[in-house]
Amino acid sequence: MNTSSRRKIIQGAGLAATGAIAAPVLAQDQSGLRWRMAASFPRALETCYGSTSDMCKRIGELTDGRFRVTLHAPGELVPALEVMKAVSGGSVECGQAFSSFYFGVNPAFIFDAGLAFGLNPRQQNAWMYQGGGLELVRELYAKYDCYPIPIGNFGVQMGGWFRREIKSLADLKGLRMRIGGFGGMVMSRMGVSPQQLAGGEIYAAMEKGVIDAAEFVGPFDDEKLGLNKVAPFYYAPGWWEGSAQMTALVNLKSWQSLPKAFQNAFEVSAAEANMSMLCRYDAKNPAAMRSLIAKGTQLRWFPRDVMDTAFKTANELFDELSDKNEDFKKIYVSWRKFRDEQTAWYQVADHYLDNYTFNALKRRT
Amino acid sequence: MNTSSRRKIIQGAGLAATGAIAAPVLAQDQSGLRWRMAASFPRALETCYGSTSDMCKRIGELTDGRFRVTLHAPGELVPALEVMKAVSGGSVECGQAFSSFYFGVNPAFIFDAGLAFGLNPRQQNAWMYQGGGLELVRELYAKYDCYPIPIGNFGVQMGGWFRREIKSLADLKGLRMRIGGFGGMVMSRMGVSPQQLAGGEIYAAMEKGVIDAAEFVGPFDDEKLGLNKVAPFYYAPGWWEGSAQMTALVNLKSWQSLPKAFQNAFEVSAAEANMSMLCRYDAKNPAAMRSLIAKGTQLRWFPRDVMDTAFKTANELFDELSDKNEDFKKIYVSWRKFRDEQTAWYQVADHYLDNYTFNALKRRT
Repeated sequence: MNTSSRRKIIQGAGLAATGAIAAPVLAQDQSGLRWRMAASFPRALETCYGSTSDMCKRIGELTDGRFRVTLHAPGELVPALEVMKAVSGGSVECGQAFSSFYFGVNPAFIFDAGLAFGLNPRQQNAWMYQGGGLELVRELYAKYDCYPIPIGNFGVQMGGWFRREIKSLADLKGLRMRIGGFGGMVMSRMGVSPQQLAGGEIYAAMEKGVIDAAEFVGPFDDEKLGLNKVAPFYYAPGWWEGSAQMTALVNLKSWQSLPKAFQNAFEVSAAEANMSMLCRYDAKNPAAMRSLIAKGTQLRWFPRDVMDTAFKTANELFDELSDKNEDFKKIYVSWRKFRDEQTAWYQVADHYLDNYTFNALKRRT
Repeated sequence: MNTSSRRKIIQGAGLAATGAIAAPVLAQDQSGLRWRMAASFPRALETCYGSTSDMCKRIGELTDGRFRVTLHAPGELVPALEVMKAVSGGSVECGQAFSSFYFGVNPAFIFDAGLAFGLNPRQQNAWMYQGGGLELVRELYAKYDCYPIPIGNFGVQMGGWFRREIKSLADLKGLRMRIGGFGGMVMSRMGVSPQQLAGGEIYAAMEKGVIDAAEFVGPFDDEKLGLNKVAPFYYAPGWWEGSAQMTALVNLKSWQSLPKAFQNAFEVSAAEANMSMLCRYDAKNPAAMRSLIAKGTQLRWFPRDVMDTAFKTANELFDELSDKNEDFKKIYVSWRKFRDEQTAWYQVADHYLDNYTFNALKRRT
């Protein structure tokens, strides 16, 4: 999933992006403080919208209603992709965002969401909360008058829907694939022609043969869009985002002037939402994948030469971005060190045991 | 880590188990409600004790000090292994517990902590919060007048310290190993002679040759105990606990009479602690492992025939426990279904990408 795809989900859900910038609401009378939160994802996505909605409810509960944050679907206050701009400018106090949306503003924002080939979601949390990641990301966002707080994770997504089977890297050449952001940049270097297309437009474009492939989210969300009806091959994994963390962006001045008790309520509710959103996807994706396969979807994994070239290209791009962008470089140094240490440690116990167990269970069936 | 090991960490930390049962404190005057929480782990463990301590602090912050929970080290109110008994009886309002401690009371309690060969920590969360696990575990604990809330996870631990190399299953025969609980039961069927021994006693017992092996926790905690000085071989993984979830046990009546606002503050702080504890271990273990290896520790993995026999034996034991115990059976049915679905899905995207990335990074170094 990328910038374009997420914008289009919204349109796909029938929510027009009005472009209107809302006037700030800073009411704080007897009824308490009220904030509005501009969502980047539509109500239809009960996982990512639902977990943020529950977070807002929790903030109200924790403050006995003295601090209420209301979540507004994309287009109600601002269009989905203008959430950061609106928060930065203070026309809304906070927003639900996916930082990779703002890759074009500053590529270093992707550290707040997830990079190609890891960190994975658990490692992302460890880096953010205990490895210095959150401090670095907050330093970056402060330049844009925003204060980021993690509020969820999509987990590793799918690699997308393909009309034809991809048997080797050569089969990607000239392929018109709906994919954007960093993933699109990598794919472009691998011969793909990346297409910007609304989520709601994917179905028709694929049916008409305007595009050959499209990445969206994962089984649970993709099934809703019916993409299995227009493309038989469903590829894994979505290597362009090893973790896809979702973020609450708060206007920096609004955050700094927020009473400590309300800051606490926001932060602790955000932590709960961070865990909850991933749990929702983990619990829902298996059944959706089974359902898709039962309907005829053919599950495939990207061929080895595609994976190897993507890995090499992604790492080259990381180096190029570091050379060009001081913000990227500073965070990349911390991130890469943490990734390499985690990689070594995971293979000792956690990942080693997963590997053993998954294979042992497979042998039994 | 198991019942015995955890009891002994406490003694190892120089905290005498007094055996005294504290009188209940149910103060609720102008200064608000005060609860005491009896810890199962000593202050010395900044990860698991530290995350629970921060959780208590958070509860106080969220309620403007109207609801304060104070954490007491093992022995201050009740001995570590009597936490559940004290909570159940109401002599303390709540406790920090590891449910596998109570395997002897009811083997079904291990579903609240973790079972051999998975679920892994992320899957455990998905099952607990979104897969019906928490409801089942609460139904079980209600029979003991307790209300459980997840508050942390140790991640996959190490398989322990061995004085001699284990080259095959045969090398386990007659081995005197400090290990208890479910892991001890499996090991016993594999020829090991499980030993109950204090954490603080491991060092001396190993040095004198009274035991041949000992499992404790993981690199960060084990290094503090200095076990690397008395045993050269450090084995992975601790397959007897694919997830090691920590739990707050609350007296059921105390929970039910707790104002909703305080329940909310407790639950949301617990969720934050659940994530935070695992982040702490993830962030700290890699450096500790490097440090141990630099000091001469020889890292090993259990041989294939040990893993295969352990997997087979563990699953046989699950079946036997299901046959004997209705509580175990009821939860096992849900747990096993969830595990099998997660196993299939993880291999599509998340685990597949981890596998690829970890191997690709290894090839680069």
